[in-house]
Amino acid sequence: MGKRTEFLYLSESDTIEAGVLDADRCVRNAEEVFTLLSKGDYLMGGSNHNSHGLGLVFPKDSPFPNMPLAGPDRRFVAMPAYLGGRFDVCGNKWYGSNAANPSNGLPRSVLTVTLNDKDTGEPLAFMSANLLSAARTGAVPGAAAKHLARKDSKVCAVVGCGPINQSCYRSIVSQLPDIREVICYDLFEEKAGSFLNWSKVELGISGKISSDLEEVLRNADVVTIAASRLKPLYFKDEWIKKGATVLVTGPVHTDESFWLCSKIVYDNTKLHEAYMQEAAESGNKKNYYAGVIGGPLYTLMDDHLLPPLCESVSLGDVILRKKPGRTRDDDRITFIACGMATFDVGLGYDLYVTAKENGIGQRLVLWDDPYQS
Amino acid sequence: MGKRTEFLYLSESDTIEAGVLDADRCVRNAEEVFTLLSKGDYLMGGSNHNSHGLGLVFPKDSPFPNMPLAGPDRRFVAMPAYLGGRFDVCGNKWYGSNAANPSNGLPRSVLTVTLNDKDTGEPLAFMSANLLSAARTGAVPGAAAKHLARKDSKVCAVVGCGPINQSCYRSIVSQLPDIREVICYDLFEEKAGSFLNWSKVELGISGKISSDLEEVLRNADVVTIAASRLKPLYFKDEWIKKGATVLVTGPVHTDESFWLCSKIVYDNTKLHEAYMQEAAESGNKKNYYAGVIGGPLYTLMDDHLLPPLCESVSLGDVILRKKPGRTRDDDRITFIACGMATFDVGLGYDLYVTAKENGIGQRLVLWDDPYQS
Repeated sequence: MGKRTEFLYLSESDTIEAGVLDADRCVRNAEEVFTLLSKGDYLMGGSNHNSHGLGLVFPKDSPFPNMPLAGPDRRFVAMPAYLGGRFDVCGNKWYGSNAANPSNGLPRSVLTVTLNDKDTGEPLAFMSANLLSAARTGAVPGAAAKHLARKDSKVCAVVGCGPINQSCYRSIVSQLPDIREVICYDLFEEKAGSFLNWSKVELGISGKISSDLEEVLRNADVVTIAASRLKPLYFKDEWIKKGATVLVTGPVHTDESFWLCSKIVYDNTKLHEAYMQEAAESGNKKNYYAGVIGGPLYTLMDDHLLPPLCESVSLGDVILRKKPGRTRDDDRITFIACGMATFDVGLGYDLYVTAKENGIGQRLVLWDDPYQS
Repeated sequence: MGKRTEFLYLSESDTIEAGVLDADRCVRNAEEVFTLLSKGDYLMGGSNHNSHGLGLVFPKDSPFPNMPLAGPDRRFVAMPAYLGGRFDVCGNKWYGSNAANPSNGLPRSVLTVTLNDKDTGEPLAFMSANLLSAARTGAVPGAAAKHLARKDSKVCAVVGCGPINQSCYRSIVSQLPDIREVICYDLFEEKAGSFLNWSKVELGISGKISSDLEEVLRNADVVTIAASRLKPLYFKDEWIKKGATVLVTGPVHTDESFWLCSKIVYDNTKLHEAYMQEAAESGNKKNYYAGVIGGPLYTLMDDHLLPPLCESVSLGDVILRKKPGRTRDDDRITFIACGMATFDVGLGYDLYVTAKENGIGQRLVLWDDPYQS
């Protein structure tokens, strides 16, 4: 007789019940993951242990009429990870994305996470991961705001008013209690308007919308950038004031001088080393750089204008006080985040534990007695 | 109001009810997938569209006491794919493996497959994939036996008597009705004995066991190799008789002359091109080659002793009659199979359709109305 294997299924509403919308809790989870990244107690994919994930790349054209073609936000990606510390668990995020989804009543991306016993590989949980993924993505700049932003930050600029930045902003204000004004910018004005309204109603923070990016940024103490990839976003160095903290979660273009006159903190320098390695191997570095958030920084490193990643700072180093973060009120600090499966596994694990303890979700049987063992 | 999303959960016993043990059906499914591979109507991971998958690579040692370490069969792998034709669906296989599992009443690997709508990314099904994966792995040499082996093949040698070769052998004999004798070889004699017994009882084919590999191979018309990676397997060129078909599903070492005097047919030359590309990028080609089934062949190609992959034959080419397979009764044909996610998606899809039509499995709700859309 073999071993019976059960696991827990969590729908989206189960993940809400398990606490995925508790921004402060998600930020604490992300802080813990950042310390594990800094210590090295994790694995992501590949022999360098730091691959972001493996995607299906849809072709630009195809002789096969049904094959999905390249298009806005169209991709499928698998993102495996092991996370150590008290988590000590393996998992995989798997998602499909399509910019056309919202017109069909669906989120742009549809995500699931599987958690697995690190030794046996048995599934522990399979869960809807849309809110989980948004929460962990938002919690990352939330943790960065806590450790890098001026405590007296009052004005927050939101550049890109989609669900990701909603989650980022919620996390950021959960860590900076003095924030009293939000300035919302989006390519689509009505999205900026809905965001502002949501901020007022849900978080009690009012402000304004603007389609003038300079006006949006000029007075911001904290800037969170998570704009659509559909149109390149550009801001001038001089629009960012002294002492500001710029939290970058989506691609952005700016003046070279901005990068050179800003203190840069990365989510995980090892991840960016893996990106640079992949770019070098791809045979078309420039093209590869154009598709990743850190691209402009990698170019400056190749040109020896920025220090190499091995000499740069990860947020976990700051949290653990291994390297300094903000040292002066006047520092302009830029935080670069690319998304790592370790955060999905970390937050997913805490939701799983909460769900198990509180009888949330459905228990499913993989097998009573495995057919082959 | 957004769109409600439901999907189907299939346990291992649900997959049995949906037909995963029907070897002939699985072989027909694999044949269909082979034709799509030959036509190019599929995508696997990466920009070359042919990556096998992305794994967590456990380190040899670690300063963290809980981190899983490299060990026999220890890995986690994510394998995404799109499969065209009538399937027209995306999916991902995700599994963890550990040679210590059987001593805990578990299969060596624990596998799941997720199928997704190619456009929206919504999950269609999440299923136990142990039998699915074994069935598709076995169906591949089954399809190869049908198209490459002599129809009058009578003696089948089974090298490695684990669950994978059980599935291979079941598929092979489903396609070669004249097989009347099996010769079983395994490092562990009792495993060979159980296999022989199972063959008698389940398939009505008797034979013998032997620990002398030469004796096992000398008289075989068909050889199926799926031995453990724990100990390298070596056979001599002269042990394989004229007219034999050697179906390679696991790593094997043999004389150079065997590869040079055998007609080689691949599961998919494009997959092997991707392996060779990855090996070149890894910076340690020899080491990479040592870890993959095609390694000895890639070495001979590098040395220009075998024709390059672009001039070689895929099984789908033979099925579609684009290239010749067996042309003479005396041909020794070797078939090389490495495992592709396209087969998991193809067979998984047919099980999903059967389950849906017959009310097998559990319907699960991802969301009634997505929180963010």
